[in-house]
Amino acid sequence: MPKISNKGIHMPESPIRKLVPFAEGAKKKGHKVYHLNIGQPDIKTPEVALKAIRNNTIEILEYSHSAGFESYRNKLARYYHAQGLPVEPADIIITTGGSEALMFAMGSTMDAGDEIIIPEPFYANYNGFSVASGVKVVPVISTIDEGFALPPIGDFEKLITPKTKAILICNPGNPTGYLYTQDEILQLAELVKKHDLFLIADEVYREFTYDGDTHYSVMNVPGIEEHAIMIDSVSKRYSMCGARIGCIVSKNKEVMATAMKFAQARLSPPTLAQIASEAALDTPQSYFDEVIAEYKDRRDTLISGLNKIPGVKVASPKGAFYCIAQLPVDNADTFAQWLLESFDSKGETVMVAPAAGFYSTPDVGLTEIRIAYVLKKEDLIRSVEILAEAITKYNNR
Amino acid sequence: MPKISNKGIHMPESPIRKLVPFAEGAKKKGHKVYHLNIGQPDIKTPEVALKAIRNNTIEILEYSHSAGFESYRNKLARYYHAQGLPVEPADIIITTGGSEALMFAMGSTMDAGDEIIIPEPFYANYNGFSVASGVKVVPVISTIDEGFALPPIGDFEKLITPKTKAILICNPGNPTGYLYTQDEILQLAELVKKHDLFLIADEVYREFTYDGDTHYSVMNVPGIEEHAIMIDSVSKRYSMCGARIGCIVSKNKEVMATAMKFAQARLSPPTLAQIASEAALDTPQSYFDEVIAEYKDRRDTLISGLNKIPGVKVASPKGAFYCIAQLPVDNADTFAQWLLESFDSKGETVMVAPAAGFYSTPDVGLTEIRIAYVLKKEDLIRSVEILAEAITKYNNR
Ligand SMILES: Cc1ncc(COP(=O)(O)O)c(C=O)c1O
Ligand SMILES: Cc1ncc(COP(=O)(O)O)c(C=O)c1O
Repeated sequence: MPKISNKGIHMPESPIRKLVPFAEGAKKKGHKVYHLNIGQPDIKTPEVALKAIRNNTIEILEYSHSAGFESYRNKLARYYHAQGLPVEPADIIITTGGSEALMFAMGSTMDAGDEIIIPEPFYANYNGFSVASGVKVVPVISTIDEGFALPPIGDFEKLITPKTKAILICNPGNPTGYLYTQDEILQLAELVKKHDLFLIADEVYREFTYDGDTHYSVMNVPGIEEHAIMIDSVSKRYSMCGARIGCIVSKNKEVMATAMKFAQARLSPPTLAQIASEAALDTPQSYFDEVIAEYKDRRDTLISGLNKIPGVKVASPKGAFYCIAQLPVDNADTFAQWLLESFDSKGETVMVAPAAGFYSTPDVGLTEIRIAYVLKKEDLIRSVEILAEAITKYNNR
Repeated sequence: MPKISNKGIHMPESPIRKLVPFAEGAKKKGHKVYHLNIGQPDIKTPEVALKAIRNNTIEILEYSHSAGFESYRNKLARYYHAQGLPVEPADIIITTGGSEALMFAMGSTMDAGDEIIIPEPFYANYNGFSVASGVKVVPVISTIDEGFALPPIGDFEKLITPKTKAILICNPGNPTGYLYTQDEILQLAELVKKHDLFLIADEVYREFTYDGDTHYSVMNVPGIEEHAIMIDSVSKRYSMCGARIGCIVSKNKEVMATAMKFAQARLSPPTLAQIASEAALDTPQSYFDEVIAEYKDRRDTLISGLNKIPGVKVASPKGAFYCIAQLPVDNADTFAQWLLESFDSKGETVMVAPAAGFYSTPDVGLTEIRIAYVLKKEDLIRSVEILAEAITKYNNR
C-alpha cells in the first residue's frame, strides 16, 4: 500500500476534532450542548447580499477573473478607503476565504524549511497552512497575565534566524480577542524593516472592536509598504462564512504578481459568492452598529459571568468574539471531554475548545480554554452557569 | 525589500498569459477575436441548478462540513453508482473545484522533493500545483503521431525512482482530447501495484466522450483500491466553472483521512455553490444528450476543417473538448502572437494557446497549438477559415 506524505502525517487536526464524537455522544443521550467552541456566528447575513444571490440572472456560471471581479475589487478598494486604508484595486486579489489568502501569502513569501514567527496562542489553522507549505512555525509566547499583549520585541529578535521570512499576527486576535495598539504595530513595523521580513496581518476581525478602541491596520503604517501583507475575509464581517470569499492585499508588486500566479493556477474564486460579497458592501451602517452592540453585550455578559466563577481568570477581549479563560482544573482537555461525556446540568452541557491546540509550544495553556461568544445572551448566561457548576463537580469527582 | 519565495519565482504563468495584452491590443484596434484558447464553455448551466440558487432561503450563510454537505455527498455517491462507479459517500470529500482536489491529492501523498510522473502534454496547472507543493514533475512524452495514446509502460518504468510517489493522468485529456482505453488503464494499474505508487486520475471530462467510446474510470479497476485517487469537478459537466466545486475520491482510508485534515484547515467548500451542485445532480439526461451532440458536432466541424488546411496535422479527439494541432509554421508561440498583433481577416482573428506550455520537456511541441472547441459551429468554421488564411500569410510575410 503506497504511503501518504510526511506532511500529511504532520498535518494537525482541528483542536476540537477529538471532542466531536463526545459531543455527538452527549446529543445522543438527549443532552443539549451549548457550542462555545466554534467561530460560526449566529448573526443573520445582510439581506442585501442574500437578495443579490436570489435575484441573480446568470445563465452560464462562468469562471471569474483569477483576481476576482474587477467591479468587486474596485468597490472593495473604495470600502477600504472609507475605512481609512489606502488600498487600491491593484493591491487586491480576491481569494477563496481568508484561508486561501493565507496560503497564497505563505506560498509567495516562503519555501520549505523557511520560518515564520507567530505570537501564540494563535488561530490553529496557521499550523495547517504552514505544514501544507512546508514552513516552520516559530512561536513567541504571549501570556494571559499580560492580557495577550504583544510580547517584547526582544523576544522576537531572539528567534530571528537567516531562515525567518515573516512575522504573522492576527489583529484582533483569535483566540485571544486582543487588539494590538498602534504603538505595538509600529514596533513590529520597525522590526520587519530592520530584519527585512514580511509582516502578514490577519485582520479578518477588523470591524469587531469594542469600548471605542480603534483598529490600526498594517496598511496604515508608513514605510512598510513593501513588507505588509493584509489578510481579509467577508466570513465574519457579514456573517457569511459559507461564501468563502476573502482577499490578500499588499502594495508590494512582486508579492502580488507572485500571488497572482497561485491564483491563476486555481482559476478563480467562487462566482456566486463574489456576487454576494460585492453586494454586501452596500450593507447599511445600522447593521454593523447592531451587530457590534450585540457582540459587546455578549462579551460583557460572558466576561462578567466568568469573572464571578472562583478561580477563573480571563483576559477581557477588546475585539473579535473570542476569549481565553484559565480554569481551576488540572487539565482543560480532560475537562472539556468530561463536560460532554460525563456531565450534565439538567440535561444541558457546554462544548469548549481546549486552548492547548492554539499554542505551538508543548505543555502551554493546559488549563486554558477558548470561548467563542457567538451565542445569544441568554445562552451565554446559561453556559456560564453550567461551566461554574461543572468546575465544582469536576474537581470533586 | 524582503524577497519572495523561490517557489514563487518558479511558479509558472498560464501558457496564454503572455498573449493576453496582444488580445487586448487586437480588440482595441476593433478586431473581433475568436477565443479558441480557453476551457470556458459557452453552454448554459442547467436550469435546475440556477433555480436552486435563486430559490434558496438561507438566512445565515454558514460554513458547511469541511467534507461538504452530507446530503450532497450521499447524492453524488448515487450519481456515481448510476454511472457504474462503486463510490460511497465516505470515499468523497467535496472540494473547491477539481483544482483544490488536485492540491489535496498532491499534499496528501507527496512531500517536497518527491516526484510525480505525468504523460505530457498535460493540463498546464499541474505544474503550478506541483510547484506549490514542492513536488517535481517528471514528464513522459506522448506524441501527436500516436494520437497521444498512453506511452509504453517501459517509458514510465525508466523514470521511476525511489522518490516517485504517483502517476497522474487526465482522462479524457486536456489538452489532447485522448480517451484512455480500458487496456491502457489496466496497464497503469499493474504498474502502480508493482511499484507501490498512487494513480491519480483527473476525470473532470468523464462525460465528454464521442463516437460511442466509453470512459473507463480508475474507480472501476479491481485491486487498486488503495492506489486510486479520482479527481472530479462540476465545472465542465454542468458548465458551472464559476461554482468552484469538485471532489477528491478514494477508497484509501488513510488518504481520505489525510485529505480531510487539509480540508479542515481551509474550513469548507463554498456553500452556495454546493446548493447549485447538489441540485445539478437532477439535471435531465436530455441536457447531456444535447450537450454531447453539440460538442460532437463542433469537434467534427473543427477537425474536418483543420484537416483541410495544407500541412496541418491533428489528433482527432475522442473526449473532452480540446485538440492539439501541429501547424506548418516555424514557431507556434510567435505565430499565436502574430495572429493577434499583426493579422486580421476582414477585421477578425483568432486566439489560440501555444502548446509548448502544456509540455514540461523544453523545446517540445513548438509548432503545436491547443484549440478548445467551446464556440458554436459557425464560429468554429470561421475560425478555421481565418487560421488557414493566416498560416499562408504568416509563411509569406
Ligand atoms: C483568525 C482567522 N483567520 C482566518 C480565518 C479564515 O476564515 P475564512 O477562510 O472563512 O475567511 C478565520 C476563521 O475562523 C480566523 O479566525
Ligand atoms: C484537466 C483539468 N483538470 C482540472 C481542472 C480544474 O477545474 P476546476 O477547478 O474548475 O474544477 C481543469 C479546468 O480546466 C482541467 O482542464
